Formats: sequence, C-alpha cells, structure tokens
Amino acid sequence: MKLPLGYRYASLYAGIRKVAQDDLALIASDTPAACAGVFTQNRVQAAPVKVCKAHLKESRGVAGAILINAGNANCATRSGDRVALACCKAVAKLRKSPVSHVLPASTGVIGVELDPRLITDALPKLVASLSDRNFEAVSRAIMTTDTRPKTASAEVAAGKGTVTIAGMTKGAGMIMPMMATTLGFVMTDAAIAPSMLAGMLREANEESYSRMSVDGDTSTNDTLLLLANGASGQKISAKDRNVFTEALAHVMQDLARQIARDGEGAKKLITIHVEGAPSNDAAARIARAIANSPLVKTAVAGSDPNWGRIVMAAGNSGVAFEPAQVDVYMQGVRVCRKGLAAPFSEDALKAKLDEKEVDIHFVIQGGGEGQTRFWTCDFTEEYIRINASYRT
Amino acid sequence: MKLPLGYRYASLYAGIRKVAQDDLALIASDTPAACAGVFTQNRVQAAPVKVCKAHLKESRGVAGAILINAGNANCATRSGDRVALACCKAVAKLRKSPVSHVLPASTGVIGVELDPRLITDALPKLVASLSDRNFEAVSRAIMTTDTRPKTASAEVAAGKGTVTIAGMTKGAGMIMPMMATTLGFVMTDAAIAPSMLAGMLREANEESYSRMSVDGDTSTNDTLLLLANGASGQKISAKDRNVFTEALAHVMQDLARQIARDGEGAKKLITIHVEGAPSNDAAARIARAIANSPLVKTAVAGSDPNWGRIVMAAGNSGVAFEPAQVDVYMQGVRVCRKGLAAPFSEDALKAKLDEKEVDIHFVIQGGGEGQTRFWTCDFTEEYIRINASYRT
Repeated sequence: MKLPLGYRYASLYAGIRKVAQDDLALIASDTPAACAGVFTQNRVQAAPVKVCKAHLKESRGVAGAILINAGNANCATRSGDRVALACCKAVAKLRKSPVSHVLPASTGVIGVELDPRLITDALPKLVASLSDRNFEAVSRAIMTTDTRPKTASAEVAAGKGTVTIAGMTKGAGMIMPMMATTLGFVMTDAAIAPSMLAGMLREANEESYSRMSVDGDTSTNDTLLLLANGASGQKISAKDRNVFTEALAHVMQDLARQIARDGEGAKKLITIHVEGAPSNDAAARIARAIANSPLVKTAVAGSDPNWGRIVMAAGNSGVAFEPAQVDVYMQGVRVCRKGLAAPFSEDALKAKLDEKEVDIHFVIQGGGEGQTRFWTCDFTEEYIRINASYRT
Repeated sequence: MKLPLGYRYASLYAGIRKVAQDDLALIASDTPAACAGVFTQNRVQAAPVKVCKAHLKESRGVAGAILINAGNANCATRSGDRVALACCKAVAKLRKSPVSHVLPASTGVIGVELDPRLITDALPKLVASLSDRNFEAVSRAIMTTDTRPKTASAEVAAGKGTVTIAGMTKGAGMIMPMMATTLGFVMTDAAIAPSMLAGMLREANEESYSRMSVDGDTSTNDTLLLLANGASGQKISAKDRNVFTEALAHVMQDLARQIARDGEGAKKLITIHVEGAPSNDAAARIARAIANSPLVKTAVAGSDPNWGRIVMAAGNSGVAFEPAQVDVYMQGVRVCRKGLAAPFSEDALKAKLDEKEVDIHFVIQGGGEGQTRFWTCDFTEEYIRINASYRT
C-alpha cells in the first residue's frame, strides 16, 4: 500500500488490555498538519472525544499527533478528562509541540478507570519507535473485537503531481455511526487549508461512515480524524477539491465497508440501495431502518429471500411512501413488484443469497430523486456469543 | 380464569398454516358490543388492519365478532382487501349482523396470497362450534412463533355488582408496538359507551403494549381490540372510569409482559424503570432505547452487569440529560452512581442476573418528573436460529 509522505507510526503493548497485544499507538506528522474531525452524536461522550474537540477548536484545525489506546474507552470514568489531557501533555513534551496539537482517542470497555501511568511510562519508547513502516502495526493495535485490520488508500492527481490518501479504522460492534463510528484515522500528504478540510471530511463522511451500521448502537467514543500535512508539496486548489473529496470518500467507503464486513459475528456484507425517496436524507432513513432490522439481518443470515421483512422495516422508517409503488430486488432478482410478491425461483435465489455479499435494492417507482447506498452485515448466533460475555 | 359474560369462542384448522394446528378463530359477542381498537403505525399496513379501521368508523365503535387467522398476515397481497372483506361478509351472513360489525385480524407470513375459500368454507363449522368454553383454544389458535398462549383477566366492582375483563394476545417477534402489538383481544361484560371506551383503551395502551418490545421491529398487522357488551348488567359510570381503566391497564400489562417473556428465543424478562426524565414521553424514549439495544440485551443474556452499555443506549435516545446525574441499578444493586462505576460485588450480581426476571433502574438524580416502566427480553442465539429460517 502506498502511504502518504511525512507520517510516522508506532505501537506497543502498554498493559491496558488483558491479552498481551499492542494496545497503545501513535500517529505523527513530521510537520503540523491541517486536521478535521467528526465525532459521536451520543449524549454520553467519552473524555478523549471531549478533549479532541477542545484541542481542534483551540488549534483552529491543526494537529501533529494522534494518541490511541485500545482496551479501555475512558468513558464514564471519574478521572477521564484529567487522564486524557495528561497523556496529551506527555506526548506534547516529548514531541516539543503545543498540547492542543495532540489528539487522543480510546476504545474498549466503558466505566473502568484508565491508569495514565500505563500510558505515560510507555510514551518515551513509543515516540522513539516512530517509523513510516509501522502503519499496519498501528492498524492492528487499535482493534478490539475486530477479526482483521482495516486499511485503504488512494492516489489522486493534484497540482503538478500526485497526492496520497491512506486510512485505517477499527470497529465491529456498538456501531451505528450518525457522524463517524468507533475510530478512523485518515492521512494525506496533500496541502489543504483547515477550513476546506473540514467541509471535505463532512461530505465524504455523509457517503461513508454515516451510511453504515452493524448493530444500531452508536458508540460513546466515535472519532474520525483526517490529517493533511502537505508533505507531497502539492496543494489542493478549488479546482481539485471535488476530485480529491471523491477519492477521500472512496477511501472512507472502503474502510466503512470493511467495518460492516467484519461486524461482530457477521458472515455477509449487505449493501442496501434506496432509490426514489423524497430526498437523500429520507433514502438514508429508509436504508438505515432496513439495515437495523434484526429480522432482515437474520433472514439474510439464513439466505431467506424474505422481502416482506424488508418492506416492513422500510415502513417503520418514518418516511412517507406509497407501498404500492415499491419494487424490491435481492441479488438483482426482483422479489417484490408494486408492493406485491413478484414471481422468482426460490431455490435459485437462496443459492445466490449464500454468497458473501448480498445486495438489496429498494426502489420507489415514480417517487422522488432521493437515493443512497448503505452498508451493514447479517446477524448470526456468533454476535450473541461475542456480546453475552464481552466485559467479564 | 373467570370470563366475562356474553362472549363465545371457536377455533379450527382451516389449512392456512402448514402444520395441522388451529389457524382460524372467532370471538363473538351475543349482543353488539361497544368496541375500540389501536393499530400499527407502520406505513405498510395489512389489509385486515385497513378493513378493521373502516368497519369501526362505519359502525361508530360497535362490533359483534372478530375473525382471526394465523399462518398468513394478508399483507402486501394483491387480493388482500377483497379477501378480508369477503370473509367478514361471510361471517356477517351466518351471524345475521351488519358487515361492519365483523372485524378481521391476521398474523403470519407477509406477501403470500391468502385463499379466501379456505376461510369461507370453514366458517359454517366455526360459527356452529361457538361456545363460552373455547377461550383458551382460541388463544392457542392465534399463536405463531409463540411458545405458549397468553391470557389475563380481572374483576372490577362497578355499579352495584362486578364486571369481568379477560384478554388474550399473541406475539414473539417483529414486536415494538408504537400503538399496539401483533394481536390482542380484550373482552369485558361491562356496559361502556363507545366514545368512553376508546379513551380508556388509549390510556391503558400507553402503560402496557406501548411500553414493550422484543426486537424493535413494528409489525404491519398490529391490532388490539377491546369489546364491551354490557352482559353483566353493570354500566361503567364517570365515577367508575378510573378504577376500570386501571384494571384494564393491569390486564393489558399482564398480556404485554407475557409477550416480552415469550420473545423469540428469550430466557429472561427485563423490566426497565426510568425516573427523573423531563417527561413521561422522554422516559419512554430512554427506556425504549435501552430495551432495543442488542448490546444491552445480549449482556443480560450473558448475566454480564455491563452498565456502560445501558448508559450508551440511553445516550442514543435523543433525550437531553446530564450523564453525571445518572444512577443505574441492576437487580436492585447500584452499578453506576453519578455516571461513574459504583462499587459492587461482580460475582454476587452475576448470580442475581441468572434469574428469570431482570430489573434495570435508570434514574436521573435531580431531573424531571418523567417516569415509565418498559418490558423487553434478552437476546439469545435462539432468536437468530428462529429468524434465519422462519419463512422457508
């Protein structure tokens, strides 16, 4: 994977999680980078989310390092804000940067105090091991119930040269991003003004993380950060803006799809297309209702072309539509026409539904212009096994 | 169980479901009864729901018979309205009543045409077998994935005597009633004016069916009907209204709890109490968010006192509250105080969570007057097994 210039990465095991697997990571830019973030909309927000927002505000969208720990969400903890801030200060001291240029992110169990010494004691070694070859190691260190690391990248022509975007993300459960989900870090070596960067991230997010769910539970720690350090020497001008944003959205969609595919216990990636809704937002609401229905997700797990559940779920989305105008397709096969059963071969479709990727198209004929794509996963017994005993 | 006077019941196997188990049922009042109903708020509504509403409007709240079938929801079907109406007409002819006094209700698979002849051919035998001794048989005939019939009753002093309320209900999946859920039929021999009856049903429903979910999926067929035929000779006057409504709510809560307890794959009944919310409605929204969180439901299945998930779910309810004011109790044990971990014995609480009934209290200290009770169930691997292969 081609990585953007001017970033270095490090990870190690600091003793935060029970199993001896890297749980502390640092992403650093060689020079201060423009930075934008999107965060959870949960009313309960973890300390690192609050500190991240405060630092981005104070720095006016500039950052040099992201400090991430797994194994403890640092949420609903007595000392949460103090711990997050102390760790940022320790990084800033070692890196000789303003404290506001260090952004914290945490994932793991909620409500358990996080011992800051585990982190601060490990920081000198962590900073000393920063290297441009540790990208993949960091993508593994931020995992919790994930079964595999999740990375994506793209190259974009810009100015007189090429810029590179690379991202990593984690997440398998407690996932229904309303803004971002769990943790995602995207780096580029393009030069982009902070104000422009924030708008690009919001746009790309609307078509990626905000269109994906695993279980409908929005986390307290969702954080997605985008860094642009300009190390390529190429600046994104107004005319490059759309091409770059599209490439960014592509990388973020790739990451979001990897999260859905690796949803806790999931065997299948489900892509839901909605067309003909009153607006794109209404399309997203319909798609989200279908994606979050346990009955739809279990039907897909069982390769059951039970389109009645899809129509039922859409009917609960709060969006006004005429059921008699609805066509539904599964794996390209029309299973419902004008709200009624369409003839199809049950056996042939069941075989197609056994595939690892399942497409659902929900089309309101003669409806509006609103459309969207949304990613989720099937719901298997393994999800229950994982979550009935995660904490203890 | 004491049953109200003046009602008769019948059921038989008409060949609608694949297994030879009663699938057609009739509830009849000896005289026209005042009747009120609450129905699904799903945008997609089954034909019997539409016919029920039209008949209640036409009759101004009077009904003599309820015709119920299991095995086919008569929803998203080409001939749905015609079939439902034809069946009502056939009952009306046999019972010599206006067509609008017959109310249809269906439950089962969505999107499969319902053959009306299966029903009309069986009706003469069904009507001939009406008896006051078939209450329990009918409560079994309306079951789908239910593992047991669900009935409840109460006696209330009214006027110079006593009146009786008895109800039956069904439902185990596709259950998050916004108004009512799946099917519920409640009969009383009190005399109550139709206009008064509708208000009492709405009030009782707000504290029972509207406070319960299994999987967060609102069905297309939800129908709850309340009949009052006056056969006891006692009239509910304005002064008896509150006592009667309370007894009615008690019967309906009993039925709603039985649905939650028999939720697909459920091993535990969960009762969620919310106090200190800005309003009762806000309390219900918090309770519903907790009840619908797969992560909360799987934690309860695993007897895991994972209160962080409860706080996370409440934070997604859309209700504004201050996390630092929240106390959470599980089985009476305080697990979270002012938004932070409270000390408790993990082993002792895990043992308590192994019980068949689990209580969760979510209290906003110094908050508003809003409170509610809400019922749901845990989420086990069996739910997945049931729903991955329901249709085929």
